Formats: sequence, structure tokens, C-alpha cells
Amino acid sequence: MTFTWPKNFYSDGIHGHLRRNPNKPDIGWLVSTKPANVAGVFTRNTFPAAPVQLDRTIIRLNKPVHAIFVNSANANAFTGDVGMDNALKTQKLVAERLHCDESEVLVASTGIIGEQLPMDKIQAGISRLIESDPMNLAKAMLTTDTTTKTAQVTTENYQISGVAKGSGMIHPNMGTMLGFVATDATINQQLLQQLLRELVDVTFNQITVDGDTSTNDTVLVLANGDDWSKAIKAGTDAYKSFKANLQQVLKTLAIAIASDGEGATRLIDVRVTEARSKASAMKVAKSVVGSNLVKTAVFGADPNWGRIVDAIGNVGEVFDANTLSISINQAPIILNGQAVVDDGTAAQVMQEKIIVVAISLGIGHEQGQAWGSDLTYEYVHINAAYHT
Amino acid sequence: MTFTWPKNFYSDGIHGHLRRNPNKPDIGWLVSTKPANVAGVFTRNTFPAAPVQLDRTIIRLNKPVHAIFVNSANANAFTGDVGMDNALKTQKLVAERLHCDESEVLVASTGIIGEQLPMDKIQAGISRLIESDPMNLAKAMLTTDTTTKTAQVTTENYQISGVAKGSGMIHPNMGTMLGFVATDATINQQLLQQLLRELVDVTFNQITVDGDTSTNDTVLVLANGDDWSKAIKAGTDAYKSFKANLQQVLKTLAIAIASDGEGATRLIDVRVTEARSKASAMKVAKSVVGSNLVKTAVFGADPNWGRIVDAIGNVGEVFDANTLSISINQAPIILNGQAVVDDGTAAQVMQEKIIVVAISLGIGHEQGQAWGSDLTYEYVHINAAYHT
Repeated sequence: MTFTWPKNFYSDGIHGHLRRNPNKPDIGWLVSTKPANVAGVFTRNTFPAAPVQLDRTIIRLNKPVHAIFVNSANANAFTGDVGMDNALKTQKLVAERLHCDESEVLVASTGIIGEQLPMDKIQAGISRLIESDPMNLAKAMLTTDTTTKTAQVTTENYQISGVAKGSGMIHPNMGTMLGFVATDATINQQLLQQLLRELVDVTFNQITVDGDTSTNDTVLVLANGDDWSKAIKAGTDAYKSFKANLQQVLKTLAIAIASDGEGATRLIDVRVTEARSKASAMKVAKSVVGSNLVKTAVFGADPNWGRIVDAIGNVGEVFDANTLSISINQAPIILNGQAVVDDGTAAQVMQEKIIVVAISLGIGHEQGQAWGSDLTYEYVHINAAYHT
Repeated sequence: MTFTWPKNFYSDGIHGHLRRNPNKPDIGWLVSTKPANVAGVFTRNTFPAAPVQLDRTIIRLNKPVHAIFVNSANANAFTGDVGMDNALKTQKLVAERLHCDESEVLVASTGIIGEQLPMDKIQAGISRLIESDPMNLAKAMLTTDTTTKTAQVTTENYQISGVAKGSGMIHPNMGTMLGFVATDATINQQLLQQLLRELVDVTFNQITVDGDTSTNDTVLVLANGDDWSKAIKAGTDAYKSFKANLQQVLKTLAIAIASDGEGATRLIDVRVTEARSKASAMKVAKSVVGSNLVKTAVFGADPNWGRIVDAIGNVGEVFDANTLSISINQAPIILNGQAVVDDGTAAQVMQEKIIVVAISLGIGHEQGQAWGSDLTYEYVHINAAYHT
């Protein structure tokens, strides 16, 4: 399916000479021709990059916006006051191109930490941004990602489309994760923000590549619908279905990032059921998917349930070993605390590309899910090979 | 220096046929010929192994003990009621050998998770335990460790000697870390327990190999001194010096474990100063030493300060970028928020075997330290190579 933006959105991605490879675009924008309500969720890192600090102030204004500018190759992180000035300059240059107010432009950067943006190139690049194939923006965001990441859902009333980049802090000082979602649905900003926060917690925040959150992680949603007679209101069926569709888009992008984890050969999909609370289920799922021992075992195609049990136990909550059941790609491993693993079958299912670890805690009715990649020689190679 | 036990302690380590290699002892004990006060700190894992559950009850009795029995190759973890029965049987067999009460015997196991102890071999082994070179116990504890780990401090009044095993959950389902310390100093159990808890937090709990704590982690201290006229009492100079000496022994063992981390080629020693609180300093140090990105950078001899900053930021506390300073093996990297790294010098110091990362947060007066190993191809190989 060709990737498209909803009505009244367009984007571009070009080579702005931030990196040498002329075939890799590194500057782009997503533009809404109509005022768009915006929601944003950002990194929890204590040293957020300048663009993250700037976008937070934009979100707080609670006013419609017109565009997101993005550059790769340079994260504008840990760059001090000069970095903030450059983010503001970038915002101003884009606003001038679009004849809108500076406060209607968000900026995002990903790349090297600790170097200043080459503003001459940024300025030249912005002056050349137009409208082109949406995939150009999907490409312009990428750093060391191996694939573009897009998702979209179309209903009779609206469309939701998203692009993302991720794949972990691969190269030295690489900011990690960006996600931009656009919809022509009509929804007020407060509700959109609340919805995004809730859905990011069960999607982007449930993937782990190397456990570190970066200085630049950003997820933005623009909604430019203006038919308030069809506005999505909390608690309605329309709301429920919009929420499900937005979650679908965010989840697809998040899984794409996990699958493209640095050096990844397998996707690990951990599904926890019968937990006391949703928070507990999500914590257990993330602990298992985040365990280096589980990640290396998956790389080694080793149905190493001892490590899974250990990772569950490391969450530090009270579980009952006698009600714990685990299966891997539907092969039973542990049933109510008893090892029931058939080594042959287990070794066989561990060969599959997607490893679904189903964990039933047997102490409640809540569930949670998390996704990650295996830990491979290539991960070490990618992360260790660089020399200053 | 030859490793010796304090007065009235002896130990043994023999090949009990738990593993095939006849040159690797797998059963041992540490015996105090006099009643010894005992302190213990155990894994926080939710699924503690049977021996951990049993030892906790012994510690709670607040009564002197006579021995610690240890076996490697089998962790007796996730083994249910049968596992607990076997731990109790082991305790009983050792008590019979030593003509003491069962409640005076602690047991420790490390090895495969989810398999029952071969009690016939355990029984036969216990019947053969005598007194031999202390290094035999140091060897008997080891699983995939590459070196024995011992430490001792001798003063005119007492001696403190310790042995440990660690090196991470290398092979499938390997329990991680055991530490046994013996002293002929005279100190009451309550004070010893309080001291051990406090010192483990700044030593064993500040090392990380792969971030996972195992089902079997155990640190035990036996004190068999009975000259209560010379008893170590809280707040005295004697207490301060005993505390410093015990910390020295625990720290030496902990660093030995970190240095012997699976596939490790370098020791990472992170020292955080000018923090708001000691807890905060220790948290920052552990976050940096635990970051896969920092660990791979160290393996790659890459002075990748962006990753260090990122790991500090991931602690989720409020820091000031403008007061942050970082040096690696004394080469300045960041000074008050400004990158001052000299690439040549930085690349050079990263070649050293011990990488000391000094982080000054510039927001307080407290400090903390953590130790870990780098993340290498060999780590992935060791952890992925096994196939069930």
C-alpha cells in the first residue's frame, strides 16, 4: 500500500548536506495547510535536546500549529545556549517559508550529540523544502535505521498516518526515536494530548532496544480536522474507534522500531496475562524483553526459560511460582510452576523470526505487552566499532 | 599472599561428581569450630532459590551457626517443594557430619535453574568433606568464573577473609553471585547484620555484569570471636576500623566479580562526586556502568561521552548540564557542561585495562561508586552459544 498523508497535509525530505552521502536525505518537514491541534510526548532524559525543550513550550501554548521540521545527522543535544538559539533560528526560518507564526512550528533533530547545527546548511535546506513523495520525509528522519517506518489507518471519516525512526543509539551519540503522526480527524488538543500520553505508554514506551532512552525521543501528533460537528468526544464510540486506530498506528511504528533494533535478527514479543494490574503486566513484559540474558538467548535460539523466570523475578513484585506458566511461540515451557518443556519442540520454535513469549502470572486478570530485539554480535560490532 | 582463614575456621572443596570435569571441585564447606554469629544478605529476586529461602530462616533465628555448605553446577532454584526438601536434607547431612544442630548449618547452591539436586551425589560428597587448602573452597564455588576470588585483611586483633564467585549468569540458567566472609572478631549478630546490609549496598550491589540479579545471590558473614571484653561496639573507633576492613574485603571481592564479568576485557570504575545525596551518586554511577552503550563503547575503546551523559540523564533526577564535568582516566572530557575532549588523548586512555569514569555533578557534596565490565563479542558468544 502506498503511504499517503491525510487531507491537507504534505511533506518533503531532501539532502541538506548535513551528511556526506548524497543519496540519504537529512532534512525534511511535515506541513499542515490548515491549523492543526498538536499533542506531544517527549523523552524523560534529564538532558533533553534543545528541540525537545522548544517543542515542549509549543505544546504548552495549547494553540494550533502548521509544521514539524526535522533534521538527522545532528541531534542538537547537549549544545547549551547556542543550541537553543539554533533551534529557535530553525523555527523562525521555517515559519518565514510558510508565512506562519514561529510558535506554529515544531522542530526535531536526531544524530550526533554535542555538536552545533550547521545553520548555513539548515538555512539553505529549508529554502529548498517543497512538497514531495511522503517517503522522502520517512527517509530524511533516518540515522542508522535500515528501513523506513510508516503506518496508516483509513476510515470513512478520517485517515491517520505516521512515520518514525528508531533502531537504538547505534552510532556514537545518536539520538534514538522520533515519531510523527498526522490525522484529518477533528479532535481538541487536550483530548488528543491525553490520548497520546495514554497510548505512548503502551506502545513506544514498551519497546526496548538497548534500554537507554535518548536525549531526543519525541512523538508528535497533528490533527487538522475542523468539522466540529463530527468532532471526536471522550467516551463516545467514535472516540473508542479513533483511539483503537491511533493505537494501531503507534503500535505498528513502535514494533517497526523494535524489529529494526541495532544488529537485530529477531523480534521478541512478550505478552503477559493474568497479572494483578496492567502496570505490573507491562513492567514484567518490559523486564523480560529488556534482559540481556533473554536477548542473547533469543539470538542463540536457546529456549532458556530460567532467564525468563529470572527476569520476571527481577521486577521486584510478589508473584506465585506455582501459578506461573510460560510458552514460547505456543510451545509450553512452564505450566503452573512445573517445567514441561520439550527440548526438541522448544529448540525448533526458537528458530522463528518472531519470538512470542507468553507469560501467565495466574494472579489476576490484567495484561500487558512489550517488544524488543535480540542482542547480537552485530549489536556489539555496531556499538563498539566506532573510534573517535 | 597465601589465602588463609581466621582462627578456628577451616574449609574444604572436592569433586562431588555434580559436573563431569574431575578437575573442577563442585562441593565444599566453610566450618567454624566455635559458634559463629552470622549475617546474611540475599537476592531481591521474587523467585529465590530453596537454599536462599532456607538461609533466610536461619538468619532470622538470630542464633550462632557452625557451617556453610556450598555446591556448584546446580542452583536448586525454581525446584518447588522437592527442592526445599533437598535443601533441608543437605542441611541435615552436614549437621550430622559436624555433630551440630541443623539450624546451625547454612546452604548455598549455584548452577542450573530448574533441575533437582542429585541427592545421592550430595550425600556421598558431604561424607567426604574434611579440612583442606582454603583455595579448594574458592574453586568449588565457581561455575563459569575464570578465576578464584579471595580477599583478606589482617589486623593485630582479628582477621577477615572472604571468598566469592560471580561473573554473571553466563551459561544457561546459571545462578550468579555467592560471597562467604569469615572473621574471628567478636561482634554481636545484630550489629554484624546491620553492618553487612550497609556495606553490601556500596559494594556487591554496586557491581553490574548484565544487570540481572539471580535467584541465588547470597552474601554471608560468620564471626566466631568470643572475647566479649574486646567486642566491637557501634560508634567506637574499633567499629569504624572493623567497618573499613570489612568493606575492603567486600569491595575487593565485588570488583573481582566485575572484572571477571562474562567475556569482559576491561573493568569500568565509575566515580560520581558532588551529588545531592549518596543514593543519587550511587544511582548515577550504576546507571553509567550498566548502560549497554557505555559498555560497548568501552569495549570499542571509544571515549563516547554522549552515551555517558545519556546514561546520567536516564536516572531521571534533576541535574544541571552547566555544572556537569566528566573525565576518563583523568583525561578531561566535559568541563562544566562544555566538551573539552582532546580526541587523541581520549582515544589513548580508552586503551587502558581499567577505565575510571569520574563524573562531577556539581550540585552537592555526596559521592558514590560502581563497577562493571565491558560488553563484548565474547559476552554474546557465551550467552548465545549454548543450545538446549
